Amino acid sequence: MKAIGAKTQQSGSNQSNLVDFEIKKPQAKGHDLLVKIAAVSVNPIDIAVRKQLKADLPQPKILGWDAWGIVEEIGSAVELFQPGDRVFYAGDYRRSGSNADYQLVDERLVAHAPEKLSIAQAVAMPLTSLTAWEALFEKMGLSPEKKYSNQTILIINGAGGVGSIAIQLAKMVGLQVIATASRSETKNWAQKMGADIILNHRRSLPEQLFNNGQKSVDFILGLSDIDGHWGEIAEMIKPEGRIVSITGNQHPLDLGLLKSKSVTFAWEWMYTKSFYQLPTMITQHQILEKVSQLLDQGILHSTLKQTLHSLNADVLEQAHQMIASNRSIGKIVICK
Amino acid sequence: MKAIGAKTQQSGSNQSNLVDFEIKKPQAKGHDLLVKIAAVSVNPIDIAVRKQLKADLPQPKILGWDAWGIVEEIGSAVELFQPGDRVFYAGDYRRSGSNADYQLVDERLVAHAPEKLSIAQAVAMPLTSLTAWEALFEKMGLSPEKKYSNQTILIINGAGGVGSIAIQLAKMVGLQVIATASRSETKNWAQKMGADIILNHRRSLPEQLFNNGQKSVDFILGLSDIDGHWGEIAEMIKPEGRIVSITGNQHPLDLGLLKSKSVTFAWEWMYTKSFYQLPTMITQHQILEKVSQLLDQGILHSTLKQTLHSLNADVLEQAHQMIASNRSIGKIVICK
Repeated sequence: MKAIGAKTQQSGSNQSNLVDFEIKKPQAKGHDLLVKIAAVSVNPIDIAVRKQLKADLPQPKILGWDAWGIVEEIGSAVELFQPGDRVFYAGDYRRSGSNADYQLVDERLVAHAPEKLSIAQAVAMPLTSLTAWEALFEKMGLSPEKKYSNQTILIINGAGGVGSIAIQLAKMVGLQVIATASRSETKNWAQKMGADIILNHRRSLPEQLFNNGQKSVDFILGLSDIDGHWGEIAEMIKPEGRIVSITGNQHPLDLGLLKSKSVTFAWEWMYTKSFYQLPTMITQHQILEKVSQLLDQGILHSTLKQTLHSLNADVLEQAHQMIASNRSIGKIVICK
Repeated sequence: MKAIGAKTQQSGSNQSNLVDFEIKKPQAKGHDLLVKIAAVSVNPIDIAVRKQLKADLPQPKILGWDAWGIVEEIGSAVELFQPGDRVFYAGDYRRSGSNADYQLVDERLVAHAPEKLSIAQAVAMPLTSLTAWEALFEKMGLSPEKKYSNQTILIINGAGGVGSIAIQLAKMVGLQVIATASRSETKNWAQKMGADIILNHRRSLPEQLFNNGQKSVDFILGLSDIDGHWGEIAEMIKPEGRIVSITGNQHPLDLGLLKSKSVTFAWEWMYTKSFYQLPTMITQHQILEKVSQLLDQGILHSTLKQTLHSLNADVLEQAHQMIASNRSIGKIVICK
């Protein structure tokens, strides 16, 4: 089968290290599905993994952590799917990604794709929906079944992939949503996603919050530059509030700033469950099934912004460069 | 009325700065109760506040954040109590403490004292029970009504005041409890409180955990030296686990160690609710009423270890020195 992989970069080289190559089509065993890929989306994790490739790779590393496809074969232990099912998923960080004709994926990470969305609209959603859902409904302790009309969440970087769906999920449970964005396109996008108030993350957030009649917020979701925003986050979070970050820190974060307020801080990395093969892996199947329904019901909307065509090394390079610019809005998708 | 206060310490002086003094008996207004104090207990917070007194105190600072007493007067807004009620509470960090004949306290922080315990047994409990309860049932997300028989909590420093009741609360909800202690008296005490396994916090905790057949734990409650134990905590916590600490850090804690495991870290400071006058203040009334019932039902047991008599500056100095030695076990109480 055809696949696109990343080779170890020669030091100092400016050439793309993405290559089209041929590899043996894999077989489904155990809980695995063999999925024929129709479309993928790109995420910052692709760039991060591409940068960290080891020098002695036996073959190019197949990236890609979002897929829409049709189940072609199932392993003997599979219970949730059958051949012919149309599925979408984010997959497993440790395994080969979706930039290929076929991919193996554990059924516990997969859901039936939404029926009323186009393939491009659907494939934009798995990784970011899982991340935002786990951040809000597992790490922040909110319930997707309840309403929180007197509470406020601040989403730092509201117009990116995760921010775009996090805004929608937060609105779904009735939170007041304050999102940050710095350009007119990103501000408009975050508003379109449902944000009630937009702040500019290039200026003082506490000052702008205050000018909007508020001093503090119940929840903060950090999706960008946790180091740069930490002092502001500690200032704006309410006593007993909850902070979740998906982006790591480069410098020590002063946790002591949160102590007298008894604040909770949680990391959200959507790949923890599959990376450690936790019993909670099955919850990713459940979350994606729920997201699929909510998309079909029109309660959630696709965050697709741009569709590229032909999944090959050149087009993938183009998509990666759009992500790496840190200026992309919503999601970028590649259809075969 | 009589009170005991702490005066600003002359620099270089070794003399006790605790003094007996006279002060006007206060009056109850609003939600306040005026309580006639019968007994108090001492806590590390007394030592911390005593060390941080400002130079220009208008009068000696009345310490003491645990009390058992009888309601003498009620403010006009009081709904939960009436004169003559026997109550216990930890009170409010910002206000005058319990080391006096009478004390004002907001009714939302107070509960009816347990009926089947002696005054000394009861007054040992409020501050530590509130801290342990909030740590387990608010910050760790456990429910006091559920059972967690397949999960494990590690309590670092199990024989102190908070550790002694945290062990009992964790056993109450069916957790396996691993507590740390370093001396034979503290090991025996932690076992008496219900700990299943004792590790020595002066040696490698991950190594001892492994020798007990386990590699990791679901929950960690840090009650001592969070700096010194941070690396071990990050190593032992399970993916998606929860860490709560009541003791602050002196050095930056490397939060990044917890990222790939998507771990949650929370501070627990029992005074947050009253310090910030949060709507959740009323939960301290509710928690203490529940603790009072559980003590009367024999489900929880007093952590009283030692009772001193006569509440005056000399006896209080003696009690503070026992706390400051970091060798005290369970709780020290002073009855009038």
